[in-house]
Amino acid sequence: MNDTPSQSVHGFLLALQEQLCQAFETEDGSRQFLKDPWQRTAGDGALAGHGITAVLEGGAVFERGGVAFSDVNGSKLPPAATARNPHLAGRGFRAMGISVVMHPRSPCAPTSHLNVRFFSAGDVWWFGGGFDLTPYLPYEEDVIHWHRAAASACAPFHPRLYPLTRSTCDQYFFLHHRGEARGIGGIFYDDLNAESGELAMPWERCFALMQSVASHYLRAYLEIVRRRKGAAYGERERTYQLYRRGRYVEFNLVQDRGTLFGLQSGGRTDAILMSMPPAAQWSYHSPDARLDAQLLPYLTTLRGRDWLA
Amino acid sequence: MNDTPSQSVHGFLLALQEQLCQAFETEDGSRQFLKDPWQRTAGDGALAGHGITAVLEGGAVFERGGVAFSDVNGSKLPPAATARNPHLAGRGFRAMGISVVMHPRSPCAPTSHLNVRFFSAGDVWWFGGGFDLTPYLPYEEDVIHWHRAAASACAPFHPRLYPLTRSTCDQYFFLHHRGEARGIGGIFYDDLNAESGELAMPWERCFALMQSVASHYLRAYLEIVRRRKGAAYGERERTYQLYRRGRYVEFNLVQDRGTLFGLQSGGRTDAILMSMPPAAQWSYHSPDARLDAQLLPYLTTLRGRDWLA
Repeated sequence: MNDTPSQSVHGFLLALQEQLCQAFETEDGSRQFLKDPWQRTAGDGALAGHGITAVLEGGAVFERGGVAFSDVNGSKLPPAATARNPHLAGRGFRAMGISVVMHPRSPCAPTSHLNVRFFSAGDVWWFGGGFDLTPYLPYEEDVIHWHRAAASACAPFHPRLYPLTRSTCDQYFFLHHRGEARGIGGIFYDDLNAESGELAMPWERCFALMQSVASHYLRAYLEIVRRRKGAAYGERERTYQLYRRGRYVEFNLVQDRGTLFGLQSGGRTDAILMSMPPAAQWSYHSPDARLDAQLLPYLTTLRGRDWLA
Repeated sequence: MNDTPSQSVHGFLLALQEQLCQAFETEDGSRQFLKDPWQRTAGDGALAGHGITAVLEGGAVFERGGVAFSDVNGSKLPPAATARNPHLAGRGFRAMGISVVMHPRSPCAPTSHLNVRFFSAGDVWWFGGGFDLTPYLPYEEDVIHWHRAAASACAPFHPRLYPLTRSTCDQYFFLHHRGEARGIGGIFYDDLNAESGELAMPWERCFALMQSVASHYLRAYLEIVRRRKGAAYGERERTYQLYRRGRYVEFNLVQDRGTLFGLQSGGRTDAILMSMPPAAQWSYHSPDARLDAQLLPYLTTLRGRDWLA
C-alpha cells in the first residue's frame, strides 16, 4: 500500500474533527473547543506522532467534552493492537483516529462516545470504530433512535454488520464488577479489512463505513441532545447523574483498553483522560432507588433487546 | 500454628474497627458510621468469609470515609498475595484485615489511608500494612508530624524498619501516568514474619507492630484533622480539592492492587470502592497553578526528603 490511502484517511479525520467541534459548539451556543495541537518524536516508550486535542469545558449544554485526533507511528506494533493479525505484532505501524466523548450538563441528555481508527503495518491495513450511548435518565424513544441510526450506518455495507457490531459493542462496554452495561450500546468493530471473514470489505468500502459511522453518530446524538437539553430537572436528577458518572469513570479506568494502553505507554495523560466526566460522585448505596428502577433495566435485563423490532 | 494467633488478630481487628469508628464519629460530631455486616460462602470465584463494612457519609468533618473489616479464606492463595513466598501460591489460606480511607470535607484536611492485614496458610503466616497521607493544601508541620508518627510506630521494633517501610510506601503510592506520588507517603510493609530477612520478627513482635501502626495512625491523623478542620477556605480551595481527588480515583482504579484484586475476584463492589472520594472532578488543565505550586513539590521533588531531620 502506498501512502495515498493513509493520506485520504488523515484528511478525512482532520475534517471530521473540525465538523464535530463546530457542530457541538453550535449546539452548545456558549463555549468553544480549546484546541491543543501536539507533536512528538519517539522516546521513553512513547509513540512518535502528532495530533490535536480539542476540549470544551463549562459549556451551557456540554459540561465537558473532547474530540481528539491523533496520528502515531511506532517501530513495533503492540500485540493488543490486533487480535486477528497476531503475526503483525512487532512490525512498524501507523495508527490514526478520532475519539470523542461528550458529557452534557443536563442529566436528561446522555453521554456519548465515538471512535474511528485506521491502522496500517506495511501492506496490511485495518479499520475499527463505533459509537455507544450512556443515558442517566433513559427515554425509550432515544434508545430506539440511537439503534436505528446505528443500523442505518451499517445498512449499505453488509446485512450482518449491524447485528455483529452491536453484539461486539454490548460485550465490550460491560462493566464486569458492577454486572451492568456502561450504557445502551451501539456498534463496535475492529480488525476490519478485505480479509476479515464474513464482514470482509475492500478498502474503499471500509473507508466509506468509517465515514458513515461518524456521520450517523453526529446526526443521531445531536438529535437526542436537542430533544433533552431543555428538559426540566432538579437536584435529585443531578445527584443521580453525578453518581452514575462514577460508573463511567470506573469503566474507563478499570477496563477500557484504549485508556489503559494510553496511560501505560506514556501518552499525554490529560488528553487520554478527556473522557473523564467533569464531576462524579460515589456513595455506598445508590442515591435514588426510583431512578435506578428506570435506568438499570436498560443496562441489565434489556441489554439484548432488538430495539428495531 | 494452631488457631490461637489468628483468633488473637481477629479479636484485635474487630476491636480496632470499633475504636476507629468511635474516634472518627466523635471527631465528626454529626454523623455515625453505617455498619453493614456480611457473610459469604465460596462460589462464583468469590472468597468465603465475613466482615463488617462501616461507612460514614455526609458528615460535618468527614465527607466520606470507610473502615472495613474482613476475614476471608480460600482454597487457593492467589500468587499476588505473597511476593516473598511464591511456593505458597495454591495453598489454602486465611486473610484478615482492616482498611481505612477517610476523606475530610475541608480541603485543608488531608485524606488518609490505613491498612493492616494478617495472612496464614497452613503453618506459614505473615503480616502487612501501613498508612499514607494525601493532602490537598499541604502544611509542612503536618507532613513532619505524620512522618514522626510513622517513625515512632516503627521505632520499638527495628532501626531499619522506618526507612525501609517508608521507601516501600513511596514506591507503591506513586501514580505512574502522572509522574506524581499519591501523597506525602508514610510507611508500608508486606510479607513480614519470622523469616523475612533483615526485618524478621517473631509472631508476637509482628502482631505488636500491627497494633503500633494502627494506634500511631489514629493519633497522628486525628491531630492533623483537629488542626485543620476549622480552617477557613473558599470555592477556590474546594475546587482544587475536587480536582486533586480525581488523582485519588485514578490511583485506586488504575493501580491499587487490593482494589483491582477485589473487583476482579467478584467481591462486594461498593465496599471495595468505599475508598472513592464522595465527589471528584476532572479538567484538561489544573484549575489552580498557585495551589499546584504549593502541593506538587511534595509529590515530586521533595518525595525522598528526610522529614525527621
